[in-house]
Order: sequence, then C-alpha cells, then structure tokens
Amino acid sequence: MPEYENILEAYNRIKNYVNKTPIMTSRTLNKKTGAEIFLKCENFQRVGAFKMRGAINAISQLTEEQKNRGVITHSSGNHAQAVALSAKLLGIDATIVMPETSPKVKIQATRETYSAHVVLCKNSLESRQTTTNQLIEKHNYTFIHPYDNENVIAGAGTAAHELLRQVNRVNMIFAPVGGGGLLSGTSIATKGYNSEIKVFGVEPKNVDDAYRSIKTRKLQTNESVNSIADGLLTTLSERTFSIISDNVDRIITVSEDQILEAMRFIWERMKIVVEPSGACSLAGILSNQVQIKNKRIGVIISGGNVDLNNFFQIYERRIS
Amino acid sequence: MPEYENILEAYNRIKNYVNKTPIMTSRTLNKKTGAEIFLKCENFQRVGAFKMRGAINAISQLTEEQKNRGVITHSSGNHAQAVALSAKLLGIDATIVMPETSPKVKIQATRETYSAHVVLCKNSLESRQTTTNQLIEKHNYTFIHPYDNENVIAGAGTAAHELLRQVNRVNMIFAPVGGGGLLSGTSIATKGYNSEIKVFGVEPKNVDDAYRSIKTRKLQTNESVNSIADGLLTTLSERTFSIISDNVDRIITVSEDQILEAMRFIWERMKIVVEPSGACSLAGILSNQVQIKNKRIGVIISGGNVDLNNFFQIYERRIS
Repeated sequence: MPEYENILEAYNRIKNYVNKTPIMTSRTLNKKTGAEIFLKCENFQRVGAFKMRGAINAISQLTEEQKNRGVITHSSGNHAQAVALSAKLLGIDATIVMPETSPKVKIQATRETYSAHVVLCKNSLESRQTTTNQLIEKHNYTFIHPYDNENVIAGAGTAAHELLRQVNRVNMIFAPVGGGGLLSGTSIATKGYNSEIKVFGVEPKNVDDAYRSIKTRKLQTNESVNSIADGLLTTLSERTFSIISDNVDRIITVSEDQILEAMRFIWERMKIVVEPSGACSLAGILSNQVQIKNKRIGVIISGGNVDLNNFFQIYERRIS
Repeated sequence: MPEYENILEAYNRIKNYVNKTPIMTSRTLNKKTGAEIFLKCENFQRVGAFKMRGAINAISQLTEEQKNRGVITHSSGNHAQAVALSAKLLGIDATIVMPETSPKVKIQATRETYSAHVVLCKNSLESRQTTTNQLIEKHNYTFIHPYDNENVIAGAGTAAHELLRQVNRVNMIFAPVGGGGLLSGTSIATKGYNSEIKVFGVEPKNVDDAYRSIKTRKLQTNESVNSIADGLLTTLSERTFSIISDNVDRIITVSEDQILEAMRFIWERMKIVVEPSGACSLAGILSNQVQIKNKRIGVIISGGNVDLNNFFQIYERRIS
C-alpha cells in the first residue's frame, strides 16, 4: 500500500510534468454554505483531469526495459489521454485500446495530439480486456491500470498534497470516488499531513459500490452503471477498498439531480468547465449530509472533459 | 478625459469591492502562437464581467444627494447586473430598465439576487430610452451610462492596471471593443504604465464601427448589429472615440468564425466559460494579423455570461 512518504516522493518526481493547479473560491458558494470552500481545480490539469498525476508517476518509474517495450491501457476517458501524454513526454511508446464507438475527435486527439497507437475494439469490457491482453502477450507492453496501481494512487494523492500547501487550516476534504484511486491517494496525503482532517468520498447513488462496500465491510459490485458521472462508473479494487476502509471517514452518496445542480453552479456562477464526475465532490457538500458550517473545506474537482459539440452547434448555426 | 492618475485612484477606490481576477495561461496556446499569452480573466469578476469595475467606481463617487435618489440604467446585459450589485453593496436604490423579452432568469436574478427595481419596456432602443428618461424625470435618478462616462472608463481600466502588476514585461495588450469603455480604460492604464506597450482593440467584422471610425477619423455607425459577440454591438461615443484615437495602436477586426474558434479553444482546452464578446480579444491574436512571435501578451477576457440552458437540458433529459 502507498504510504504518505510515497506521495511526497511522487510529488517531487512529477512536479515538473504537471500543472500546479489553482484554487478557486466563490463568495456566493461560501455564503450559501456558511463554510469556506476551496476548489482544487484539476480540470485545469494537463489533459483536463487529475489522471495525469498518476499516469506520469507510474510510467516514469518503469525500468529501462519496460520503457523500451512501451505501455498500454484501455479506456476512452481521461486515463487514456493521461497515459498517452505521459508516454509522449517520456519518449515511450503508448498503445491505447479504445472502443470503436468512441467519439472520432477523441480517437484523433489520442493519435495526433498525443502520438499514441490507437487500437480499436468492440464496445464491451470483455473485448477491451481481450484486445489488451493479446497485445500485451505479443509485444510485452506494461499495462497501466487506471487506479489499481500503487504508483497511480500515489500520483493521484499529489493533488490533495498541493491543496494542503495552498490553503491553510483545512478541516475537511471531499473527493469523488469511482475506482477509488483518487480517493485513496487523497486520504493518504491528507491523513499523513494531519490525521485530524476529515476525508469524505462522494459517490453517485446509482453506482454506490464504495458506499455499500464500506457499510458491509465486503467488496461490492454495481448492478447498474447508469450515471451522468461517467468517470465514476467503475468499482473499487481490493487495494483501493482497503486504503479507503483505513483512511476515509465517510462515503456519502448523491443523486443525479444533485450532481447536475453542483455542476451547473460551477459553470454558471464560477465560470469553470467541469465534468459531471468532477462536480460530484461539491454535490456532496451541497447535499447537506455533513455538518460544514464554519469549516474550511478542500474540494477536489477531478476533471473538466465534456463534449461541447451540442453547445457549440447552436452558435455555429447562428453564424452560418 | 480620464488620465492615468484616475485609473490609479479608481483602483484604490474599488479594490475592496471587486475580485482581483486571476491570470490563466495555456501551454497549448503558447505553443500554437509562439508567444506567451496571459489571459486576464474578468469572467471570474463579480457579476461575471469587467463591468463591475466601472459601475462601482462611478456609483461610489456620486454625491450623497445623488445616492439618496438612486441610480438607473437600461440594459439586459452585464452592465445592468453590475449597476444593480454595486448599488446594493453601497446601499443605494437601483432601477434597471430591461426589455420585456429578456430571459426570465435574468429579470429574476436582477430583482432577487441584486435587489434592484426592474422596469420592463418594449424591446427597442427607443422604448428603453423613453422609459428611462421618464423615470429620471419623475424620480431624479442618476443615469449610469455603460461606457460614455469618465468614471466607468477609469474603473474599466483597472483590469489592465491589475494585469500589468500580475505579469511583468508585457509587450502588447489586446482588448475587445464595443462601445469602447473597456478599450479606452485599458489604453489609458497601459500607456500610462509604459507607453511602449502596444494596445490593440479587437472588433467583430460585422459591427466594425470603431475600425472605420479610426480609419476615416470620423465617428461611424453600424448598419447591421448581427454578431454572436452580443456585448460588442454598441458604437463608440465621441468620448471613447477620442480616447481610442489618442491611445490605441490599432483596431483589428475578426470574423464570426474566428470569434467562435477562439471561444471554443478557451472552453475546450482551458476549461473556462467565456462569452463570445469575451473571446474576441483572443480571436484577434489567433487571426494572425499582428506579429506576435516571442511577445508577452496580455489579453482581457471581458466576461463569461452565456445562456447554458440548452447545454444543461441535454443532461436533464438524460437523468429524467
């Protein structure tokens, strides 16, 4: 399991490759909640999400032999872009297995902007895994898991590490939970810094495996995977379950409405583009399940990658 | 005409009422342009636009008698919100004349969030002016013009004033131009700080009165008012024309496509919500009309108020 020390080491290892993302605040939000809220804006991170921190931390620690052979992951989301960019920055070959149904613009960006090899597969978890395993067998690539990887977790924890140095006297930290990599890293970074700071994980009600796993003390799965927070549909691994059990004070769940309301607040009032998963942690605060009055609260905004085509089509029609 | 000194005074007068907005940068943008670009993000200003600076600077300098009688303006845009919030912060009555066709949410926000009196009029410039003049005659309100007002101009100039203290060795500043208040204030603040810094105004081609006025040395009007940059549809006044003639190095015009492309870049790559008018200054840079290689360039992003209803309806449908 990663320790606090691993986060400090990760930070020194990656700090020249990642953005030190800013903290954003809102008078309206503080007034509305009676608390002081500090958004750690990982939507301003490279590739638009905290995933960059874990990917570069993991890939930069591979052996020379592993680096020569290259890395692989399967995802159409933020982790794929993060692995591709990290590999590019380190001069390593990256292969990304993406469902053939992925938006063309994403496939193109992964190929062109990040110079990765894209291999298309059928749109099922099975096809992704089979395709990936075949490529690993053939080329001996190193698989970079999106969260079930100690170095990825330590890298993810550097966002909270930074936050705790940008804002003093924090009482609580909220982070979203999907596979649990970000929440694991956040909790290790926070408790290592000051064990009195409370750590909350926020999860969509529709995919509440982490909530039920903690409650039943046994790793649970999700029956449906239907949430607008499409970065949080995955389930905990034994590793992240164990870290979260040890370090996180509480998992709270939020409805789709609450996620959307938090997202809309951030866009409309704070003028920041966040994805639904990224707004989850604020939804946890606004849902009034935790006593937050007069607290100083760090909120990890995990990412800002959303499809803006529909929005911009309205403007395109206006000018054509 | 406002002088550099007036901007310095305005800054001291208003700094506790306004946000010191952050500077945002983008590796991708710098790489794309070969320049170092610093966005002064007035979309993060109170009410979501630089207009707050001018309104609070003007209203706070009224006489006690004027303050007791109250202020008035007509607008459905950012200036209306800025006047309403400034008046509220100073404990003054504000009346906002808005077209009856304004979005309900805007009317409601002006009434509820900013506690202003909203008087609806027909959706024509004539009706706005008649309604406003009748109210002034009856109540002796002080009219706060959105740009043809020395104190509004001096207030607007404090954005560039701040920028020049946040970023050193700036070579150029780009600002959008509609009525010319922001560009006037920006040019006075910049030339007063260092006359060698070049100041560029950027205007939509479709409403290029400032460009033509400078070219012909005579105040021009617009025949059409058809641009997505709906904050820039107004024309220069004699006052702003005179200031811009004296202080601005060049006005460049940009197409609707170029405005939209710049806006989309800021949203997608920088994760910041800007309105079309706010993206105009960056469109001026990206349009390749000015030699910018290796320059350090300040860009005033004027505001971020856009209607997000269509965008969020897509999500609402998904969760219902």
